[in-house]
Amino acid sequence: MEAPPVSPTSLWDNIPEQLPEELFTTLLTRPGIRLERIVSRGQATPTGEWYDQPQDEWVLLVAGSARLRFSDPEQFIDLRPGDHLLIPAHRRHRVEATAADEDTVWLALHLEPGPSS
Amino acid sequence: MEAPPVSPTSLWDNIPEQLPEELFTTLLTRPGIRLERIVSRGQATPTGEWYDQPQDEWVLLVAGSARLRFSDPEQFIDLRPGDHLLIPAHRRHRVEATAADEDTVWLALHLEPGPSS
Repeated sequence: MEAPPVSPTSLWDNIPEQLPEELFTTLLTRPGIRLERIVSRGQATPTGEWYDQPQDEWVLLVAGSARLRFSDPEQFIDLRPGDHLLIPAHRRHRVEATAADEDTVWLALHLEPGPSS
Repeated sequence: MEAPPVSPTSLWDNIPEQLPEELFTTLLTRPGIRLERIVSRGQATPTGEWYDQPQDEWVLLVAGSARLRFSDPEQFIDLRPGDHLLIPAHRRHRVEATAADEDTVWLALHLEPGPSS
């Protein structure tokens, strides 16, 4: 029996012309794992809000640019295309800024917490 | 107690000037999961050889270009930056070609087989 054909898609597919809010698209899920694409167009985390997530998140900036902020200790990290980092579970962080003049495309891999490697 | 600082790295880091063989770099591992960067510079799977992997592999072409070939059914897929696809476990495939004049950078996520989504 033949396998079904494989079919590629693109991270650039299905980005609407108007993007009043960030766009979250799940690419793949497995038990304890979720891979998503995030598209930002100048958005940032609302003032005073922080992400505090129960899962580890590995994130890659594919295109555009962004500034992340972490607390305890406070850190500001500017991301360019190709930059990636692991955000441990419950490490408070926020997106301070994303590029205003182009789309910022992220790949985010949410994982059960575990020893970093 | 303060958490250790987060530290980003780049997919463009640590690519040697000479690349006689493809370069495989593990970025992150968890039980049943391995995320790796692959850098190709014109390499292809040797003639007559096929990959037949026990795990599913989600692959993203980050930069460069490549042509994949699958068997049963035979398929040729040309990948450009941003293209991604899920290669099911035991779906035989090979890399027919990668760009000769620039680096091709892949992100590969190896996963326990499961229902695709």
